[in-house]
Amino acid sequence: MRIIEGGVTAAQGFEAAGIEAAIKYQNRKDMALVYSQTPCRAAGVFTSNVVKAAPVLWDQEIVAHAPAVQAVVVNSGIANACTGQQGYDCCRQTAEKTARLLGIASDAVLVASTGVIGNQIPVEKLLAGVEKLAAAKKDTAEAGTMAAEAIMTTDTVSKQAAVQIELGGKTVTIGGMCKGSGMIHPNMCTMLAFVTTDAVISREMLQTALREDVVDTFNMISVDGDTSTNDTLVVLANGAAGNPEITDRDEDYVKFKEALNYINTTLAKKMAGDGEGATALFETKVIHAASKEDARILSRSVIGSSLCKAAIFGHDANFGRFLCALGYSGVSFDPEKIELFFENEEKSILIYKDGVAVEYSEKEAAQVLASPEVRVLVDMHMGEEEATAWGCDLSYEYVKINADYRS
Amino acid sequence: MRIIEGGVTAAQGFEAAGIEAAIKYQNRKDMALVYSQTPCRAAGVFTSNVVKAAPVLWDQEIVAHAPAVQAVVVNSGIANACTGQQGYDCCRQTAEKTARLLGIASDAVLVASTGVIGNQIPVEKLLAGVEKLAAAKKDTAEAGTMAAEAIMTTDTVSKQAAVQIELGGKTVTIGGMCKGSGMIHPNMCTMLAFVTTDAVISREMLQTALREDVVDTFNMISVDGDTSTNDTLVVLANGAAGNPEITDRDEDYVKFKEALNYINTTLAKKMAGDGEGATALFETKVIHAASKEDARILSRSVIGSSLCKAAIFGHDANFGRFLCALGYSGVSFDPEKIELFFENEEKSILIYKDGVAVEYSEKEAAQVLASPEVRVLVDMHMGEEEATAWGCDLSYEYVKINADYRS
Repeated sequence: MRIIEGGVTAAQGFEAAGIEAAIKYQNRKDMALVYSQTPCRAAGVFTSNVVKAAPVLWDQEIVAHAPAVQAVVVNSGIANACTGQQGYDCCRQTAEKTARLLGIASDAVLVASTGVIGNQIPVEKLLAGVEKLAAAKKDTAEAGTMAAEAIMTTDTVSKQAAVQIELGGKTVTIGGMCKGSGMIHPNMCTMLAFVTTDAVISREMLQTALREDVVDTFNMISVDGDTSTNDTLVVLANGAAGNPEITDRDEDYVKFKEALNYINTTLAKKMAGDGEGATALFETKVIHAASKEDARILSRSVIGSSLCKAAIFGHDANFGRFLCALGYSGVSFDPEKIELFFENEEKSILIYKDGVAVEYSEKEAAQVLASPEVRVLVDMHMGEEEATAWGCDLSYEYVKINADYRS
Repeated sequence: MRIIEGGVTAAQGFEAAGIEAAIKYQNRKDMALVYSQTPCRAAGVFTSNVVKAAPVLWDQEIVAHAPAVQAVVVNSGIANACTGQQGYDCCRQTAEKTARLLGIASDAVLVASTGVIGNQIPVEKLLAGVEKLAAAKKDTAEAGTMAAEAIMTTDTVSKQAAVQIELGGKTVTIGGMCKGSGMIHPNMCTMLAFVTTDAVISREMLQTALREDVVDTFNMISVDGDTSTNDTLVVLANGAAGNPEITDRDEDYVKFKEALNYINTTLAKKMAGDGEGATALFETKVIHAASKEDARILSRSVIGSSLCKAAIFGHDANFGRFLCALGYSGVSFDPEKIELFFENEEKSILIYKDGVAVEYSEKEAAQVLASPEVRVLVDMHMGEEEATAWGCDLSYEYVKINADYRS
């Protein structure tokens, strides 16, 4: 597996664009297009929220029933959630316009939105944006970056990843982009993430790979515990690499899944580390848990705790909060048996063992917690399973962003 | 039911004290005593956190097995959680000392702690505090207030409530005090709350009344989603009122439970409204839900959402966040059918209906959201059940308090 530069245009036959459509804000890119020169097999996972945005309803239908997908149109001004029939019509009009301009079927067009919930999108601006996107699309890395920038809302950096593997003597590329920041607590998937690949893989195995991987990647991050109405993760595979088709769980499937896991993990961590107001990526790894599900629940409970997040922000080794968050997770364990460490790239400090705090240097612990990537390692001493979850600290800036968001 | 002034000393035969013991901080009261002149029947509910503080383990044993309870000793400096055998020994020593000084059995003494997790309590300071408490205890309202002040941590105001009812021609009083502020997301009960009554009631019916009531009172509040290691709610009944004993679900039981519900609701709301950094009490009432449990889950999901809490802090009628929080609660419903209102004492503004926003004045909505007590009313149009949950807004101050807590 070779990590390369790039994003959604890294794989062969994919083009992208990012432009200004002034949907809600001026002077910033707010619409993106991902386009494949040939029809793609598509797999997707979507929000589990009962309140689903119109584009989620549109995309679920297409991913389940349409013969192929060839384009995705995204706007980052208005979420198009809680917008009723008018919101759904807006999706249809977007897809139809895109289809006409690109010479493809309208049920080959996915749409996605992120932004304020409850407002209607000015459809004429959206359709004008589609025209600009169709004219601007290119297969360059730069075009991929423009698209990654155009889907940002309160994100502070754009998020891309790409990787190459060899399958049957052919080079297969997977690339992706995502946006996150607030209302991030994916359940089944995440905010907006788009992955493209030129792999030849059956629709069933593509969906299987995505479903299996998402539980350990996008479903393991949280910024604020709020599961969005718009969460969408889509993978498009156009087959341009010409590798032998992946149709079952063979060696190639395992390689493909490893590569997909790298992309999803990288994008998910970027999302967590750039959560609204974040000053640090806050990782919790639980090892030697009794079951995989226990490990997932325990690690997510810690990164989701407001008090743990605030302690990370304050560089305060207030380890009791971490034990407390493990304790209310719903998983049963003996607090006397676990060990807790604070870690960064260079150091690992044991803080708690045998039911009590060990002797440790508060100064050294505070230094570790001041790192841009902080890890809490919990050894449950109960079994062989492990899981990692990613979040971020809770800062004044998070409150500021979300108290002022609409203004 | 007559609402009266006072707290834990309002009922006949109860005394209290609050003193400075310098357990962790100087120049503030940090130990409290509640004492009954005669033995009490006791009922209690405690944290569901797997990581239980030593005093919780001590109290659970006594409430389950001891013949009577006559005193509660509280410190608000150190939580005595994650402190191993030494922490439990500290509870035993506290109870033994208290028992000697008051001439009662050591298994008639409950202990409770709140504060930093993971530190050991300097036991000599605690025992010196017990001496001061035993000398200072009085049956006055002022003594009750001193106790209510002594259990505060980051609370900004002390919290008491008292009420009187007539049972079989006798006046029965129930009074209580509590502290809350941070790490508040009770599950089975709450941080520290102590209720005293002179009612004659069997131990079984006292525990039944408490268990039944707590699901609609203390279990319906949240400040930050973190279920503490120390949550303790204890009711002591000394029988001094001389009413006919309550031994089953008769009319007197119903009256007693109504009064208990008033005390618990009042204390729980005070706790929510004085959550760490709070500028407003944030209430969510869900009506016409399909089941009581649905109503509870939906209302708690809204008051627990960081994004809803930040919107209240910002006085921003960003109603989509409230729908989003209902949507990810786990309860199934049709978003097109529900109605959402923002309310304060004087006004009720319809914001959302038939799947879309209605025409409303942003200015008027912002004014309502700027009230000290804000209510979100959600009509599910699905059935006849309702529930109310209470929380607070999310402010810069919450982050500040919890990033700096130990310093």
